[in-house]
Amino acid sequence: MLKGRDLIEPTNFTVEELDEIFALANDILNDEKKYVDVCHGKLLASLFYEPSTRTKFSFDAAMYRLGGNVLGFSDPNTSSTSKGESLADTTVVVSNYVDIIVARHPREGTAKLMSEHSRVPVINAGDGGHQHPTQTLTDLLTIQYYKHDFNNLKIGVCGDLMFGRTIHSLVKAMSRYENIEFVFISPKELSMPEYIKEEIEGKAKYSETNSLDEVIGDLDVLYMSRVQRERFVNEEEYLRLKDYFILTKEKLEKAKEDMIVMHPLPRVNEISTDVDDDKRAVYFMQGRLGMYVRMALIMKLLGVEVDD
Amino acid sequence: MLKGRDLIEPTNFTVEELDEIFALANDILNDEKKYVDVCHGKLLASLFYEPSTRTKFSFDAAMYRLGGNVLGFSDPNTSSTSKGESLADTTVVVSNYVDIIVARHPREGTAKLMSEHSRVPVINAGDGGHQHPTQTLTDLLTIQYYKHDFNNLKIGVCGDLMFGRTIHSLVKAMSRYENIEFVFISPKELSMPEYIKEEIEGKAKYSETNSLDEVIGDLDVLYMSRVQRERFVNEEEYLRLKDYFILTKEKLEKAKEDMIVMHPLPRVNEISTDVDDDKRAVYFMQGRLGMYVRMALIMKLLGVEVDD
Amino acid sequence: MLKGRDLIEPTNFTVEELDEIFALANDILNDEKKYVDVCHGKLLASLFYEPSTRTKFSFDAAMYRLGGNVLGFSDPNTSSTSKGESLADTTVVVSNYVDIIVARHPREGTAKLMSEHSRVPVINAGDGGHQHPTQTLTDLLTIQYYKHDFNNLKIGVCGDLMFGRTIHSLVKAMSRYENIEFVFISPKELSMPEYIKEEIEGKAKYSETNSLDEVIGDLDVLYMSRVQRERFVNEEEYLRLKDYFILTKEKLEKAKEDMIVMHPLPRVNEISTDVDDDKRAVYFMQGRLGMYVRMALIMKLLGVEVDD
Repeated sequence: MLKGRDLIEPTNFTVEELDEIFALANDILNDEKKYVDVCHGKLLASLFYEPSTRTKFSFDAAMYRLGGNVLGFSDPNTSSTSKGESLADTTVVVSNYVDIIVARHPREGTAKLMSEHSRVPVINAGDGGHQHPTQTLTDLLTIQYYKHDFNNLKIGVCGDLMFGRTIHSLVKAMSRYENIEFVFISPKELSMPEYIKEEIEGKAKYSETNSLDEVIGDLDVLYMSRVQRERFVNEEEYLRLKDYFILTKEKLEKAKEDMIVMHPLPRVNEISTDVDDDKRAVYFMQGRLGMYVRMALIMKLLGVEVDD
Repeated sequence: MLKGRDLIEPTNFTVEELDEIFALANDILNDEKKYVDVCHGKLLASLFYEPSTRTKFSFDAAMYRLGGNVLGFSDPNTSSTSKGESLADTTVVVSNYVDIIVARHPREGTAKLMSEHSRVPVINAGDGGHQHPTQTLTDLLTIQYYKHDFNNLKIGVCGDLMFGRTIHSLVKAMSRYENIEFVFISPKELSMPEYIKEEIEGKAKYSETNSLDEVIGDLDVLYMSRVQRERFVNEEEYLRLKDYFILTKEKLEKAKEDMIVMHPLPRVNEISTDVDDDKRAVYFMQGRLGMYVRMALIMKLLGVEVDD
Repeated sequence: MLKGRDLIEPTNFTVEELDEIFALANDILNDEKKYVDVCHGKLLASLFYEPSTRTKFSFDAAMYRLGGNVLGFSDPNTSSTSKGESLADTTVVVSNYVDIIVARHPREGTAKLMSEHSRVPVINAGDGGHQHPTQTLTDLLTIQYYKHDFNNLKIGVCGDLMFGRTIHSLVKAMSRYENIEFVFISPKELSMPEYIKEEIEGKAKYSETNSLDEVIGDLDVLYMSRVQRERFVNEEEYLRLKDYFILTKEKLEKAKEDMIVMHPLPRVNEISTDVDDDKRAVYFMQGRLGMYVRMALIMKLLGVEVDD
């Protein structure tokens, strides 16, 4: 039963609960017209204490496409929710106006705190470097959409594996399925932290490399992420390494015909734009699936259903 | 007849007109589903030339919950409604797009000015230190909701009584009812101004004290407000006095079982959080009632009615 | 067939296509209730990379009045659509969430670029000093509304004719009709550029003057625009000339009874406020017509129709 629950971190939901959400997301995707009014009369508060246009748009679009409405702010400055008011009080007040809250905040733990004071469900849309669970839901739905199964996959994750919170969440979430093998592709300086490896130990296999080129031919899924210049000790090191972790049309030639290329976006230059037209490049569709999974999530937490 | 009228200051409406609004607010509260589409196709402009997230949210939520829509801005900078355009022109233009205007502005008299140029009703959501009439409506509805009558009440107002515009409006509004007795609780430095006392002279009784503790046991309603540090001549004075005007669980023990504690929010530290769970603490419900009274107000000024 | 098309510059549409839009705008104006739900379930993204409250409101109101919804931003700072993401990527992503995009950007050519990457129609709401086609549509609809015909008109355009992009577009657009005569009224320093005159050569007649007073009696339409102080070499020159280009009640006395005074707004002081009450002053209605023409445009590009 997901009605009335919060989503603070991806592991708040069991594999079965996630399946329920993905099934609904797929049904919405197949017959969106059926859902155009299910949230009629419902109101979502979108509280962005840190700007994130893309994430905000995705939630706003999800709620509107279900026939609901949205109020909120997208900017820490215009909000200044009040003169010294505690976040706890703000949460109580807002939760008296609306049916569900989506919150993003630069401080870790904020979403949890808000969920403890809210009278309505709270969805964490990112709290600091901590969690961004709807991105993980988006990633999982994308894998299911293209691979039709969460089991028996070889998944390459490439780029900044040290700081990439999106990738950590995905790796942990996928390790809950059967016969998963990860390939961690990164410069040594940005390799997967030990505590993540320990967490998947015994659940999934993994190997490590610094060459995308050498392993791309074996993968079912390639999850790209950004390699930020600032992470490197010096410019020279950055320039020497960055090309290893850029996906080009040329590198993609060695990949399987049914491999998929994912990316949480925004992309800077880690995927060349000439890859966009390749049918394996699913990152834009991934963004679209993110809207559908949020539609399903909102419906489940609100407990609304379509009349069949 | 409230249709087409403006609300610039609380006294724009007679006691009978207020009763009409409160009756509607109560009906919405009891059967919200009935009202979910009454403002379908109607548009509200929410013009906040000064940020006030809470007030803006309350109006936005009110309009959405009636099935209407909202456009507007919440920030003086992003608005810059135009290159040197007069507020009169802006008002004409906006009133050509929408059905009702809600405006907040740091300059006194702005709402009045706008109402003179608008082709649709204007609601003052605060103009400088001047008026904030929907807060007064909220306060009145809260008293009615909990005390079932506006007459025969002993009302303590506590905190900064010198500058608190919310409190001045409430005192004036309540003095229109029968057998009202006020207790003004404040440090001498922040006591109720003479012109307010003169205004209620002959209509309501009042007494003054600087000790909340001594009078709390007699009250039917305790209206708390913030005591701002900046108001005191020196820090020493502030520290000496502030505790007299903080409501704690301990002080509340002496109060009647059916006294209610009100606060316009945001609260800083003038009410301890351990008071929140007491059933007499109604300030969060007061915020919720503020949304319902705004729903009723919008309906009345637009002249829309529910089909029975 | 306008469904699925973009509007990047006014000449994207033929005279016949414009007629189709104006016919629909007039029908909406006459029977707005009929259209209150035609865009139910549709979503518009309003991307303002440069603030323009008036234009944003006009589009927002248009979409809401058709029963659709709007997401977006109104401020370059809160948007920061992402960390270095290309506008092309942003466009793909947003166009995956919505049904139509309205964009304003300070850089020329942006709307065109976006239309090349969007999966849904793009409406240019202004790109730099370049184009602002819905203002031109507004101006044309206003002329049709009051003069009932686009042909056989003597049109005075007054003010800053050198830099006024709105005026350039209008002159080009009107020169597509029969027997049009322009009177260009401006100080020499701000006279109509040669390339505009060349463009209408052979299509419409024109004359030039620096005295509004001398020609106002002959005009069917007077289109006023702002004369900005900054355009003049020195203050003295500005003070000497500005009065020639200010419309007063007195000057208006010489005009025909059925002449109309238009202005794209915001107006500063180039039209005295005592002109506002004259029935020939149609600039506020022009703003209202701008909303109706945008309603018609959105319907046509989305391909939605009212059920008769």
